[in-house]
Amino acid sequence: MAETDRRPSTGRVTLAEVAVLAGVSVGTASKALSGNGRMRPETRERVLKAAQRLDFQPNEQARALLAGRTWTVGLITTDGIGRFSTPVLLGAEDALGAGKISVLLCDTRGDAIRERHYVQTLMARRVDGIIVTGRRTDPRPPLQGLENVPTVYALAPSEDPADMSVASDDEGGARLATEHLIASGRRRIAHVSGPAHHAAARHRAALTQDLLGRAGLELSGGQVYFGDWSESWGRRVARTVLRAAPDTDAFFCGNDQIARGVTDTLREEGHRVPDDIAVIGYDNWDIMALAARPPLTTVDMNLGEIGRIAALRLLGAIDGSTAAGVQTVPCQLVIRESA
Amino acid sequence: MAETDRRPSTGRVTLAEVAVLAGVSVGTASKALSGNGRMRPETRERVLKAAQRLDFQPNEQARALLAGRTWTVGLITTDGIGRFSTPVLLGAEDALGAGKISVLLCDTRGDAIRERHYVQTLMARRVDGIIVTGRRTDPRPPLQGLENVPTVYALAPSEDPADMSVASDDEGGARLATEHLIASGRRRIAHVSGPAHHAAARHRAALTQDLLGRAGLELSGGQVYFGDWSESWGRRVARTVLRAAPDTDAFFCGNDQIARGVTDTLREEGHRVPDDIAVIGYDNWDIMALAARPPLTTVDMNLGEIGRIAALRLLGAIDGSTAAGVQTVPCQLVIRESA
Repeated sequence: MAETDRRPSTGRVTLAEVAVLAGVSVGTASKALSGNGRMRPETRERVLKAAQRLDFQPNEQARALLAGRTWTVGLITTDGIGRFSTPVLLGAEDALGAGKISVLLCDTRGDAIRERHYVQTLMARRVDGIIVTGRRTDPRPPLQGLENVPTVYALAPSEDPADMSVASDDEGGARLATEHLIASGRRRIAHVSGPAHHAAARHRAALTQDLLGRAGLELSGGQVYFGDWSESWGRRVARTVLRAAPDTDAFFCGNDQIARGVTDTLREEGHRVPDDIAVIGYDNWDIMALAARPPLTTVDMNLGEIGRIAALRLLGAIDGSTAAGVQTVPCQLVIRESA
Repeated sequence: MAETDRRPSTGRVTLAEVAVLAGVSVGTASKALSGNGRMRPETRERVLKAAQRLDFQPNEQARALLAGRTWTVGLITTDGIGRFSTPVLLGAEDALGAGKISVLLCDTRGDAIRERHYVQTLMARRVDGIIVTGRRTDPRPPLQGLENVPTVYALAPSEDPADMSVASDDEGGARLATEHLIASGRRRIAHVSGPAHHAAARHRAALTQDLLGRAGLELSGGQVYFGDWSESWGRRVARTVLRAAPDTDAFFCGNDQIARGVTDTLREEGHRVPDDIAVIGYDNWDIMALAARPPLTTVDMNLGEIGRIAALRLLGAIDGSTAAGVQTVPCQLVIRESA
């Protein structure tokens, strides 16, 4: 049975060789070694002796083939491996690695054909489960072609409420920022954010407006300023807001890049941050938040925790407990100097 | 043989079931289906008929167990999945995915115990090969415990010249930047970079100095300014250089963060970039290079290409062709506005 393993250098004994020596089929040999399945005690004894004599160390494939589990999880990222999917992925890998599960990485780059290809690959490899993640927090259509493999959607929840999803608590994040500004005495708070067609921008804006309203306040400038997620938008919109509402005393920004652009414009136009105007960002992206002048107070989504919880829910589902629905992970306000 | 697959929902026919129907061992059934191995034509015919009758679709595990290949490659990153390892990883995944190979992701976080654990895991899963990558370009000790599995080191080459490594051409990158500055008439060129204990900083500095010397020039400020890879270092060192050598007409910076800090200081101190002073960065990190004012001219290491070439060399080695040694991938100068 040397054909079963073409790598002569490893010198590993295969299950097939054990089976040959014991005079049984590969399936029987496996069942004898795993303790599963019915057989005569003498048969089991013969297999165990053969395994001992050959110093057989079952490899993962052999274990998997016969135990019905591969100890492998597919991790699908939908848009490259970027700033948002990386911490989710690391959190998941950490939780899974502790359980001796390996992660098969699949990057679909937002391409439906690549996604279908990867789902097929993962089905063919009989993964125990799948985690899907991506950059956007907008709900996404469920994966197609899953063949009943447990799946958890992390960061971007599934549109199907019967699926398991783990999402960031966007509204809680907006609440932390807004309440911090109000509590520190700010009354003319502007909200500048990314594109309105992104759920993250819309949700945070709606809650900010709502909280200000309950405190008897209005958005400075009279509107949410939707734009894009860039520093250059932050630099431009800061000027726009100050023209429209020169008494603005705080900016709550949809991400750290916008917040950084805002602080740059404020400094260059002679406003002191936070003395004259406070600025809060979103994401706690260290590269941006720490290089800003002053360093940014910002909302941290706990992306690693989202990945970890997704992995733990997946492990639960693999073991048979299913808890459908969206679970949200709370954010945290990281206070530095800008507010 | 229902015990061989506990997932009733998939309803897949196993190789073992084909073997039972054909009255042969699993090994024989596999050889018959894969076309490998010697057997009587009637036996092969019987197996093929059984497979057809049961509509057998061999799964990846069954293929792998019997073909001696798992079509799986381990991808070890040594320091998280960051800005440098991500494009390498995507380049590799792209080249491997085209060959229907799946990627097992292992993040060692620079921890020797995690690294050993992952190598053991990859050996137990009998991966066909391994790619190792990381953030630093310094040579690293070879992986221990490989059991002759082909391995390619990407970005950080192996210290062992008998290993296969793919590295960035640091000296070529420094040459592109320096020659561009000299060709555009700059004569007082400063070099500001990261820590001297990083190979990338040392190599680029040495070549820059060498090229200036050959052009009859000296480093502006009379020294290489080693510091760290941050914007705040760039902001500080720009002031230091201008005090030491007020006639400085160009900065070649060790990375884009430093270059961005330099441009911020230059602008705030009233120098026009590039009119008065040219600035070149390194890395072509879009977030930094595009948000800088003006956008940065910078050296691109072609990290995706490093990953792709590493994957192709690995595929070659898996197929038996070994070409040891370090292969370097040329850089490219991306010209924007700062120089």
